[in-house]
Amino acid sequence: MQNHITQIATQAKAAFYQLAHAESARKNQALILLADLIGEHENTLLAANVQDMANAQQKGVDNAMLDRLKITSGSLKNMREGLLQIVALPDPVGEMDEFRLRPNGLRIGKMRVPLGVIGMIYEARPNVTVDAAALCLKSGNACILRGGSEAFHSNMALAKLIKQALHDTGLPEHAVCFVEDTDRQHVGDMLQAVDLIDVIIPRGGKSLVERISTESRVPVIKHLDGICHVYIDEFADKNKAIAIAFNAKTSRYGTCNTMETLLIHEKRAAEILPELANLYAEKGVELRGCLKTRDILPNMIAATDEDWDTEYLAPVLAIKIVANIDEAIFHINQHGSHHTDSIVTENYTLANVFLRVVDSASVMVNASTRFADGFEYGLGAEIGISTDKIHVRGPVGLHGLTSQKWVVLGDGQVRG
Amino acid sequence: MQNHITQIATQAKAAFYQLAHAESARKNQALILLADLIGEHENTLLAANVQDMANAQQKGVDNAMLDRLKITSGSLKNMREGLLQIVALPDPVGEMDEFRLRPNGLRIGKMRVPLGVIGMIYEARPNVTVDAAALCLKSGNACILRGGSEAFHSNMALAKLIKQALHDTGLPEHAVCFVEDTDRQHVGDMLQAVDLIDVIIPRGGKSLVERISTESRVPVIKHLDGICHVYIDEFADKNKAIAIAFNAKTSRYGTCNTMETLLIHEKRAAEILPELANLYAEKGVELRGCLKTRDILPNMIAATDEDWDTEYLAPVLAIKIVANIDEAIFHINQHGSHHTDSIVTENYTLANVFLRVVDSASVMVNASTRFADGFEYGLGAEIGISTDKIHVRGPVGLHGLTSQKWVVLGDGQVRG
Repeated sequence: MQNHITQIATQAKAAFYQLAHAESARKNQALILLADLIGEHENTLLAANVQDMANAQQKGVDNAMLDRLKITSGSLKNMREGLLQIVALPDPVGEMDEFRLRPNGLRIGKMRVPLGVIGMIYEARPNVTVDAAALCLKSGNACILRGGSEAFHSNMALAKLIKQALHDTGLPEHAVCFVEDTDRQHVGDMLQAVDLIDVIIPRGGKSLVERISTESRVPVIKHLDGICHVYIDEFADKNKAIAIAFNAKTSRYGTCNTMETLLIHEKRAAEILPELANLYAEKGVELRGCLKTRDILPNMIAATDEDWDTEYLAPVLAIKIVANIDEAIFHINQHGSHHTDSIVTENYTLANVFLRVVDSASVMVNASTRFADGFEYGLGAEIGISTDKIHVRGPVGLHGLTSQKWVVLGDGQVRG
Repeated sequence: MQNHITQIATQAKAAFYQLAHAESARKNQALILLADLIGEHENTLLAANVQDMANAQQKGVDNAMLDRLKITSGSLKNMREGLLQIVALPDPVGEMDEFRLRPNGLRIGKMRVPLGVIGMIYEARPNVTVDAAALCLKSGNACILRGGSEAFHSNMALAKLIKQALHDTGLPEHAVCFVEDTDRQHVGDMLQAVDLIDVIIPRGGKSLVERISTESRVPVIKHLDGICHVYIDEFADKNKAIAIAFNAKTSRYGTCNTMETLLIHEKRAAEILPELANLYAEKGVELRGCLKTRDILPNMIAATDEDWDTEYLAPVLAIKIVANIDEAIFHINQHGSHHTDSIVTENYTLANVFLRVVDSASVMVNASTRFADGFEYGLGAEIGISTDKIHVRGPVGLHGLTSQKWVVLGDGQVRG
């Protein structure tokens, strides 16, 4: 059944196969040219964005959304720097490893290859348009970008530059495709385009991501929740514990790697919690505690069962005192979102138990959960953070946009 | 919403977390014990299978199905050997690599971890029960096994031994769960058990796999089609070409890695095809050719467009003459099932082009497509062969049942 999306996706698939012939240098050349074009056309981009901002304000969109939508000279500079960082990353495509010689003389190993056609469905941020196009191109994937309707003019202005960069470097123009009208039906059609689109990556609010992952027949790589924990163990260094618990909550409230629940061993609670509570109070963080926590800090609001399962994305923190590391790990695996969790301890064995048994995309010892992102992990850039368990967990960089195929090198072998 | 499956899956999830504490030695001990138990209870297993066979014959099930269903002394011996092979494989859980030191002193790398709870939905073969239980257990996953109703008594007899092996080695009994009645609703419930079941692996006929992958809200690792190609290139060694093309078609007809379409360069067709046609004729293979092929071998049936997209699983072969490697690769990417494709050539550059550009789970040079399986690749065993593009491609062994989480080792670092 042909529709607008299957037409686009068919072009994207053809472009993907053409991209397999494109060497790294040419892909990098296109990204460098795109960075230059963004610099040259700054005024056009800003003007397009002014239009989007005006429409959004007229619709009464909230400030957080306006903030994500806005393009400034500074954000354009960041886009250009981001592009050059992606240029500097090694090309993962074609990496070969794990070759073994089999008894029959076959040499069998793996080659890293792109996934194919990636469908990105995202909300307001126009910088995602550039990041996604660049990461997909560098990793040899074609992509279909469907940005939010609020950012329509900004995205179309960026699309024009991306197409020019592809064209001028001799790369297939449909390597980066755009859904150029805001009909919501197209999103539904993308989710049904099995065999044409190989993976869907949604980025946006939880309701968008949930809807997409429920409806999609195409495999989805997604980020859902960030309910992150810090566990202050019996053998924690007090100073590290306070610094990490404070930073993990307060350095930014709206990010997915922000701590939402603090767990602390019962033997250290009376010593550490009052001091931490003072620091949080200075920052205006609302604390909600379990029964034992409120024995130590009686003025605190009582945490309900719902608190353990809530991503506040706000200056609110739930606190629970636990009897031991097993209770802490049980709580994290039960109530967390398998995103990022950290233990503060000086005990070697307990650190290793935590690393092994906590079932999260990122597990940390003596570090703030706030480090969980592609840039901090040295990926150079990320297309998202996965809370899925198959294919890729945590920050998704170039490698997460590839998989490995088997390579079998023979000399005429046949099977007996 | 509680139902029979969510009850089982909740038990399996709890068992999965307990398994995280189980060292390799204990998992191996359970598999060795299971091998012993299968030996001790041979008569019980054979008797249960006789019951299944009688029921199946009464229902008028076809011979191929009966063949898959049947348990013999020999097949029990194979199950036991398979178990000991899995025991001998290195445990992938906890492998750590790619550690890098970041500028802030954090050491960041990856640890290999199980996926969680794996739901297996499969048809008649009782040996899948043992293979799947063993591969999942060894890789630290809990599993829920739902075998075909035809094999019900055989599977329940095996289930009893598996439970005993887990119990007697002190492993959680629900590490391997069984759907112990044949209500088809349970399959539907498994496909909806998001958050409880982490991945579904269907094994069986194409219609089963298609239905499951269409309906499932849980991610699926699946094998759909095996439309495999051999391309005899302009620079092929004639003897290798004939040996490989003959073996890839005739060594077994019903396997997914059997060649279904032979592609041959126009400069070599007249020299090679007649000789090959004679060999195929001796084996009773029906040939269907393109127009150019029938210029050389006029008595051949004409191939239609449908032939290029057909997995015969039978002594039938489609043959197409192509003008060059580009046409061959285009045909494979267009009509193949991204399973396994092989080029026969002595040309270094063309071999590399084929390896890079053909978008299949296994790409081969000068080897029969029939080698594409877990045992031949040295995985020791396989739980299936994936034709998906994310997570894992080709034969799925222990590594395919795991993913990698990020490990961050700090010394009190906080984010600025």
